[in-house]
Amino acid sequence: MPKVVIFMGSLSDEEKMRPCSDLLNDLGIDHVFTVSSAHRTPERTARLVKEYEADGCQVFICAAGLAAHLAGAVAAKTTKPVLGVPLTASSLGGMDAMLATVQMPPGFPVGTLALDKVGAKNAAWFAAQILALHDATLAEKIQQARDGFKESVEKAAASL
Amino acid sequence: MPKVVIFMGSLSDEEKMRPCSDLLNDLGIDHVFTVSSAHRTPERTARLVKEYEADGCQVFICAAGLAAHLAGAVAAKTTKPVLGVPLTASSLGGMDAMLATVQMPPGFPVGTLALDKVGAKNAAWFAAQILALHDATLAEKIQQARDGFKESVEKAAASL
Amino acid sequence: MPKVVIFMGSLSDEEKMRPCSDLLNDLGIDHVFTVSSAHRTPERTARLVKEYEADGCQVFICAAGLAAHLAGAVAAKTTKPVLGVPLTASSLGGMDAMLATVQMPPGFPVGTLALDKVGAKNAAWFAAQILALHDATLAEKIQQARDGFKESVEKAAASL
Amino acid sequence: MPKVVIFMGSLSDEEKMRPCSDLLNDLGIDHVFTVSSAHRTPERTARLVKEYEADGCQVFICAAGLAAHLAGAVAAKTTKPVLGVPLTASSLGGMDAMLATVQMPPGFPVGTLALDKVGAKNAAWFAAQILALHDATLAEKIQQARDGFKESVEKAAASL
Amino acid sequence: MPKVVIFMGSLSDEEKMRPCSDLLNDLGIDHVFTVSSAHRTPERTARLVKEYEADGCQVFICAAGLAAHLAGAVAAKTTKPVLGVPLTASSLGGMDAMLATVQMPPGFPVGTLALDKVGAKNAAWFAAQILALHDATLAEKIQQARDGFKESVEKAAASL
Amino acid sequence: MPKVVIFMGSLSDEEKMRPCSDLLNDLGIDHVFTVSSAHRTPERTARLVKEYEADGCQVFICAAGLAAHLAGAVAAKTTKPVLGVPLTASSLGGMDAMLATVQMPPGFPVGTLALDKVGAKNAAWFAAQILALHDATLAEKIQQARDGFKESVEKAAASL
Amino acid sequence: MPKVVIFMGSLSDEEKMRPCSDLLNDLGIDHVFTVSSAHRTPERTARLVKEYEADGCQVFICAAGLAAHLAGAVAAKTTKPVLGVPLTASSLGGMDAMLATVQMPPGFPVGTLALDKVGAKNAAWFAAQILALHDATLAEKIQQARDGFKESVEKAAASL
Amino acid sequence: MPKVVIFMGSLSDEEKMRPCSDLLNDLGIDHVFTVSSAHRTPERTARLVKEYEADGCQVFICAAGLAAHLAGAVAAKTTKPVLGVPLTASSLGGMDAMLATVQMPPGFPVGTLALDKVGAKNAAWFAAQILALHDATLAEKIQQARDGFKESVEKAAASL
Repeated sequence: MPKVVIFMGSLSDEEKMRPCSDLLNDLGIDHVFTVSSAHRTPERTARLVKEYEADGCQVFICAAGLAAHLAGAVAAKTTKPVLGVPLTASSLGGMDAMLATVQMPPGFPVGTLALDKVGAKNAAWFAAQILALHDATLAEKIQQARDGFKESVEKAAASL
Repeated sequence: MPKVVIFMGSLSDEEKMRPCSDLLNDLGIDHVFTVSSAHRTPERTARLVKEYEADGCQVFICAAGLAAHLAGAVAAKTTKPVLGVPLTASSLGGMDAMLATVQMPPGFPVGTLALDKVGAKNAAWFAAQILALHDATLAEKIQQARDGFKESVEKAAASL
Repeated sequence: MPKVVIFMGSLSDEEKMRPCSDLLNDLGIDHVFTVSSAHRTPERTARLVKEYEADGCQVFICAAGLAAHLAGAVAAKTTKPVLGVPLTASSLGGMDAMLATVQMPPGFPVGTLALDKVGAKNAAWFAAQILALHDATLAEKIQQARDGFKESVEKAAASL
Repeated sequence: MPKVVIFMGSLSDEEKMRPCSDLLNDLGIDHVFTVSSAHRTPERTARLVKEYEADGCQVFICAAGLAAHLAGAVAAKTTKPVLGVPLTASSLGGMDAMLATVQMPPGFPVGTLALDKVGAKNAAWFAAQILALHDATLAEKIQQARDGFKESVEKAAASL
Repeated sequence: MPKVVIFMGSLSDEEKMRPCSDLLNDLGIDHVFTVSSAHRTPERTARLVKEYEADGCQVFICAAGLAAHLAGAVAAKTTKPVLGVPLTASSLGGMDAMLATVQMPPGFPVGTLALDKVGAKNAAWFAAQILALHDATLAEKIQQARDGFKESVEKAAASL
Repeated sequence: MPKVVIFMGSLSDEEKMRPCSDLLNDLGIDHVFTVSSAHRTPERTARLVKEYEADGCQVFICAAGLAAHLAGAVAAKTTKPVLGVPLTASSLGGMDAMLATVQMPPGFPVGTLALDKVGAKNAAWFAAQILALHDATLAEKIQQARDGFKESVEKAAASL
Repeated sequence: MPKVVIFMGSLSDEEKMRPCSDLLNDLGIDHVFTVSSAHRTPERTARLVKEYEADGCQVFICAAGLAAHLAGAVAAKTTKPVLGVPLTASSLGGMDAMLATVQMPPGFPVGTLALDKVGAKNAAWFAAQILALHDATLAEKIQQARDGFKESVEKAAASL
Repeated sequence: MPKVVIFMGSLSDEEKMRPCSDLLNDLGIDHVFTVSSAHRTPERTARLVKEYEADGCQVFICAAGLAAHLAGAVAAKTTKPVLGVPLTASSLGGMDAMLATVQMPPGFPVGTLALDKVGAKNAAWFAAQILALHDATLAEKIQQARDGFKESVEKAAASL
């Protein structure tokens, strides 16, 4: 049973969001990686949210570009935490998607991460951090990754 | 039977959108002026769109601030023309609402007007221009208003 | 007799606007696809607006970059609905064209769509939605396209 | 034992963040509402994070303006979820604080909410949604609030 | 016979543009200060440009807010130098008017000045500098003003 | 004796500004095309301004990127008209150079043109328009170019 | 003999820059607080830079709004460290002054601080930090101020 | 004993910051060029600041992209001058890093330079200018470089 669902607004977002799915796999987090659109398939999006919620999904990750409504549309249908990854899909550098994701009205928060691949990875980390509140093994994995980050900096420094 | 429906995302938008309703009244266009939210009441919004469409509504006008999803949410539910009025509701000068309204993905256009009261009036004018394609009396009224604009400029020039 | 006229400000805009014309063709909408400039040929632009309007044109689509005045110049000459497609033609990511298109003063609305090719397609869709208010066959085609969008999302999801 | 800690970078942020604390109170969530600065008191910030984490804190909420480093500084010290509320504290409309909060590098996510009071409330909602994953009573309260939002829209619509 | 014509897009711009007219008066430059709109009165604008040009007008100053097309519309009708003053008329801080004024396409330059009153004054100075190329008395007045600026700085420094 | 002087802040700007010089050549306008910097050679810049002014220069064109001070530095040293061409020289799309050029304080106007090559050409056109106020042959050439623009649009339209 | 010189571009900047002078006074740093303009008085600015440099000035602080060239103009005339304080003086929120100050070309750095009063204070702190490299008493004062900042946070926390 | 320490947030910043180190080498300034991160290695960063400070480091240069906290984190730990170089590491053109670096709160200034390689070089120049306050040989080298800049402009001018 998936603990996390990743929704992308379009198949063309796959390359940017693949690192999110890969990282969840590395952390051993059962998840769904699928496409659903706020505008093209609003009913499918709403239905999947309800189905996955019933199946035990704890966190929704939504990635979209342009007038990125996907995270907000999901947030309107669930009270589980919703994370948003704004994607660059126009000449505006992703500012359109970022503002459309982060500026949600009161009561319907979307925890917004950085643009594109950095945000894709951080959505996975953030979902893991939420799940790790009740999963000591996962918490340990996150801590180990942090230790690895430290080592990578030291190695980098040594390489100069 | 209303030809136009104005949706505002919040009652606090009333002051900015009242000129839209007033102008439709001045033009003799039967319309609904109501509140419905993309996030607080997604089902109500979807239901009203279908009901008003069945009743003969020709144009939807949607006004919202922040991550303004309302116009997009309506556009996802109807193939009638949807107009968007981005409202200033944060310290970002309405850029958040503008980008969240105008940058819609292919297949789900929102005809976006200017920010705030200027856009509120222009949404009414644009709706009227659409209806006037098959309503010669209304077309005449719009033309008369344009003549009035010309006169107001000449009067202004004369007053200097 | 064309129902829609597409004006581009420059021949160099052709690649970005071709999808607009193609889509109108797909939908069986008789239209004109031409070049006219707000600044280089203001008289030609004004004359064509009047001529096409007399011939029964219902919607004008105007695409331009930089200080994109074309849609506004057309809007000043007709009371038919005018749609604007802002194009990226400088290092500012199209923000110049977007603001010059959408921020029209009261009485002269331009229904503005997204930047570049996305906007080009959406201008065609929006024009079709206006025409479909009095053309049930066209309305059916738009609805079928929407059904196709749904299927494409489901196929995309299945492909992952 | 507090489940949530709210850090503000400065006492002058109190008015904007008070609604966050009030909402947590309304939801019956034990929390700390305090001031600590990424720059003025980095050691205090690091120490409090460790102490509150040891005491069972599950979510950190960090609010700051200008070059808002507070959320990032906390995220560097804990693997618990960190929420960021960017505050307007200069003439740049909060864009400085928003970008300094949301654009975190891989591995150190900050779930960023909207600017100022809207974000203050949504940080409380988001923290509650995280805690409600393992607290059915709290989940029920959030759902009731959502029902209240729906009613408020209907009342607003009826009042027009 | 006026050497300079100041066009404002709206009577509401008078306060901001009055300093432009006042400064031309101070410099003894015969000028017209009037209202004409790119959208409300395109024919009047075109006609006045031709009439004033025939009367000997050397420089056109155009001030407008929002999607500020006025300077461009005038530039399309004359080969005399056209100066543009972008005005703040929305929540976007005048960025809309600035980009709509300065980003003119090749062949139709608008010499753009700063926003609002600063630009209003500088349009007068710039027009004077153009006229002074063939008017030694005016050139002397401009030089004296510059000397006055120097003195005002020295006085200011002395006052501290 | 040169009527126009083009200053570039750096030799690396040559490619973008070459069209300015070429166009002045095409119009038969005697001019200087040189490099001088506001920061690297402030004395040279000031000296050249005075020398060229003494030699009869009527218009200065200044092109620079980044914190583009060159036009302002020249404007501080002459009362001849100064035109500014902001160049893209960083990741900010030229917004840095544009604002540093156009937002000049009262008394020191810089007539600012569009970014990069479009602005380079328009600076030449604008300089020509100023000189043409007292040069009927040049005025005729500009008018012919405008006629050529019209024809190019008609040809483009015919080619579709 | 002053160690620091504060240049403001205009007397109207005094209120924003007074905290800079006050703070230098509090730290016992002998300094000059004066007005000089990059455009109105370029010669005075250049002359004062040379004079104060000869008198032993170690750091120049330059504050200006709009197309803020003052810091750059000073940087072009001295090899002493130059600090820039961008001021809000238009509707663009100081973004014009910030970019015109910080984006200096290679070889002519301006150490840029935050906008307005925050930057005014930080310019004083930064100048003090430079001087403290060779002034142990001053270094001690800065350290004490930092201790005071810590205490103020703790007091603020205690007051909640 | 190094007089300057360059911290980069990531090894991937090396190419952009190498010119900073090269220039310090050219000027004969003993320095450290290393990687340390505000988020991945906050303790290492704090420790190195203290160690290098004890060893006689006079100036810290910090380069980072995204939510660039590195310079601020260092500024919180030392009263030596801290210089910040914002790097472009997302689709936002470095505006994220610039605002996160320059908008520091009172008491913790970061002298911010231009984006990317230009800023990398200018950080080296600025550090040198600070050190040259008490190093006449270094001051002479900087002055010679400035003379070289002048010559390079004259050569460039001669080459046209």
